[in-house]
Amino acid sequence: MSYALSVTVDQPFETTVQATRAALGKQGFGVLTEIDLQSTLKSKIDADIAPQVILGACRPPLALEALQAEASVGLLLPCNVVVRSIDGDQTVVEALDPAIMVTLTRNDNLGKVAEDARTRLAAALDSLTDSQNSPT
Amino acid sequence: MSYALSVTVDQPFETTVQATRAALGKQGFGVLTEIDLQSTLKSKIDADIAPQVILGACRPPLALEALQAEASVGLLLPCNVVVRSIDGDQTVVEALDPAIMVTLTRNDNLGKVAEDARTRLAAALDSLTDSQNSPT
Repeated sequence: MSYALSVTVDQPFETTVQATRAALGKQGFGVLTEIDLQSTLKSKIDADIAPQVILGACRPPLALEALQAEASVGLLLPCNVVVRSIDGDQTVVEALDPAIMVTLTRNDNLGKVAEDARTRLAAALDSLTDSQNSPT
Repeated sequence: MSYALSVTVDQPFETTVQATRAALGKQGFGVLTEIDLQSTLKSKIDADIAPQVILGACRPPLALEALQAEASVGLLLPCNVVVRSIDGDQTVVEALDPAIMVTLTRNDNLGKVAEDARTRLAAALDSLTDSQNSPT
């Protein structure tokens, strides 16, 4: 089982972060948290990594449904979406596959909400490469 | 496999949130994010849940080691610690078990860092109930 949904975008990092936020919004996800991992590791332990942010995406109706099915599911919320630079022209965007909510909890009552979240996140990620695939 | 480390504390919610932050700090974790799930769900969809916060705990040296072992591991960072009210006098504190980093990624190179994080989170949670168990 893979734990990530992933796309590689032929765009620089900053452009891709903005596009990812917009794509998540179109699928009904708000971004509740944003961790700039590059600047965090630089400031805390003087480590150098490529640009990377962790966005905490949440669609409130799905979060509520998940909590009603599994009391401890907050441990798996929000849905993490990572944007990380590969080089100046390519950026990877990944989402933690919501299917792992069912795998880890073994609670089949989370199946519907996980599937809904997965479909929306996959659509958001796919939309980031739409223009790459369009005829020019 | 359980996905959570968990303790129940005989203290009100707000006291426990503060104690949890302090306990994480003593184990070398900073809190990078805090989501007030109760107020988020109330403001976004007018839903009522018991008080609950999701703390995003990060120990930078461990995060760096994990990233060096597994490029996509940001999807599983930071370590989520949930504090949720059971009633006025009891509060549950749970941490996502770092062992799932190895389970989900199937990358044994994450074993050492996951074990270190697990030991520290378990110690932080255990410390929250120390006074309960002390003779009075």
